[in-house]
Amino acid sequence: MIKLLQSLLLVMLTSIVFQANAATEDKPFAEHKVVLQISDSDPTKQTLVLNVANNLMKAYGGPDKVEVEIVAFGPGLRLMFDDNGNKGRISGLTDNGVRFAACGNTMKKMTSQLGHQPKLNSQASVVPAGVVRIIELVDQGYTLIKP
Amino acid sequence: MIKLLQSLLLVMLTSIVFQANAATEDKPFAEHKVVLQISDSDPTKQTLVLNVANNLMKAYGGPDKVEVEIVAFGPGLRLMFDDNGNKGRISGLTDNGVRFAACGNTMKKMTSQLGHQPKLNSQASVVPAGVVRIIELVDQGYTLIKP
Amino acid sequence: MIKLLQSLLLVMLTSIVFQANAATEDKPFAEHKVVLQISDSDPTKQTLVLNVANNLMKAYGGPDKVEVEIVAFGPGLRLMFDDNGNKGRISGLTDNGVRFAACGNTMKKMTSQLGHQPKLNSQASVVPAGVVRIIELVDQGYTLIKP
Repeated sequence: MIKLLQSLLLVMLTSIVFQANAATEDKPFAEHKVVLQISDSDPTKQTLVLNVANNLMKAYGGPDKVEVEIVAFGPGLRLMFDDNGNKGRISGLTDNGVRFAACGNTMKKMTSQLGHQPKLNSQASVVPAGVVRIIELVDQGYTLIKP
Repeated sequence: MIKLLQSLLLVMLTSIVFQANAATEDKPFAEHKVVLQISDSDPTKQTLVLNVANNLMKAYGGPDKVEVEIVAFGPGLRLMFDDNGNKGRISGLTDNGVRFAACGNTMKKMTSQLGHQPKLNSQASVVPAGVVRIIELVDQGYTLIKP
Repeated sequence: MIKLLQSLLLVMLTSIVFQANAATEDKPFAEHKVVLQISDSDPTKQTLVLNVANNLMKAYGGPDKVEVEIVAFGPGLRLMFDDNGNKGRISGLTDNGVRFAACGNTMKKMTSQLGHQPKLNSQASVVPAGVVRIIELVDQGYTLIKP
């Protein structure tokens, strides 16, 4: 009897380890979560990252099925400047639930370089550090793509 | 009581077998799985992504040990054009089991820009959306590298 | 018998708590592990990757809280050349525990192109293949960021 209980215990411990692994893959609100990074200066990358966000929406069937956040840092922050030519597209994507995060560290650096704080698109939220925001999202199960 | 414990044990063993299958079938053919992304216009990136595929083959000991898929989208699609200068290398890598996936969304966009559909390398398979293919592979345990 | 089952249950609950702890202790030295990739020729990327390493240190509270390794391959290897202008910053980051890994495959390629082996920063360690090193770190729980 004792032996049987011992094996039982061992078997159950093994199964607990397995289940702990399974539990971390939870995605409660959307079937897919994607964080798109933009950190290049090349303006064609701005178009590309917005195209990718759009394609994700179409492919997965809309905002209920996929969470998309675009995180900009370094020279990529320009995408989220108020006078950026993609403002209309950003607004359209925001209506579809896409979120825009702007790196606070880059803001500070650009402010000291420009002599004034750059005006950001009102759709963008400033986060303390873009890279830390990305890591946070990856830890929450987001797939990181840099188009 | 013994009977109850026996059924309990059986139920748990079954569940462990199930979970073990899920875990080991994650990588049925290869020890490593890598998806390489190309989405840049810079032609030196084409050379680099092919070098990386080659280095992975060498480092891990050939096609049986590593699965490599190169996914192209945006300006990166040019790597998979039929007239691309790297055609010979692509063919060599295909012989070593490397797979090439071309983004269907980019194909459509380029077709409307060029006025005709670009002719693709016959080694490339068209997928509906490059980024969705990448996410699919990551979900299957692939590591995503953008050289 | 009921009592025995109760103690068994208790033992198992305790073990669950233990294992939950073990899972978070997966990273014994640091709360966060980040591998930064540099493989671009653009020199502004060199500044950016060093800025990101610096921001990670600041954001997470220093070397005890985050492990950072910068892996260079392809044209990105230039960051780790001995005559690179960022030598001072690399030295400062090394003092803060940031590690620098240089791709051996790229070294070989550059050696045959230049006619001599490029002199590397003494802070950089040569690894056989940059991409393999990255995969190794990702397998160890590092988050891969390419600034």
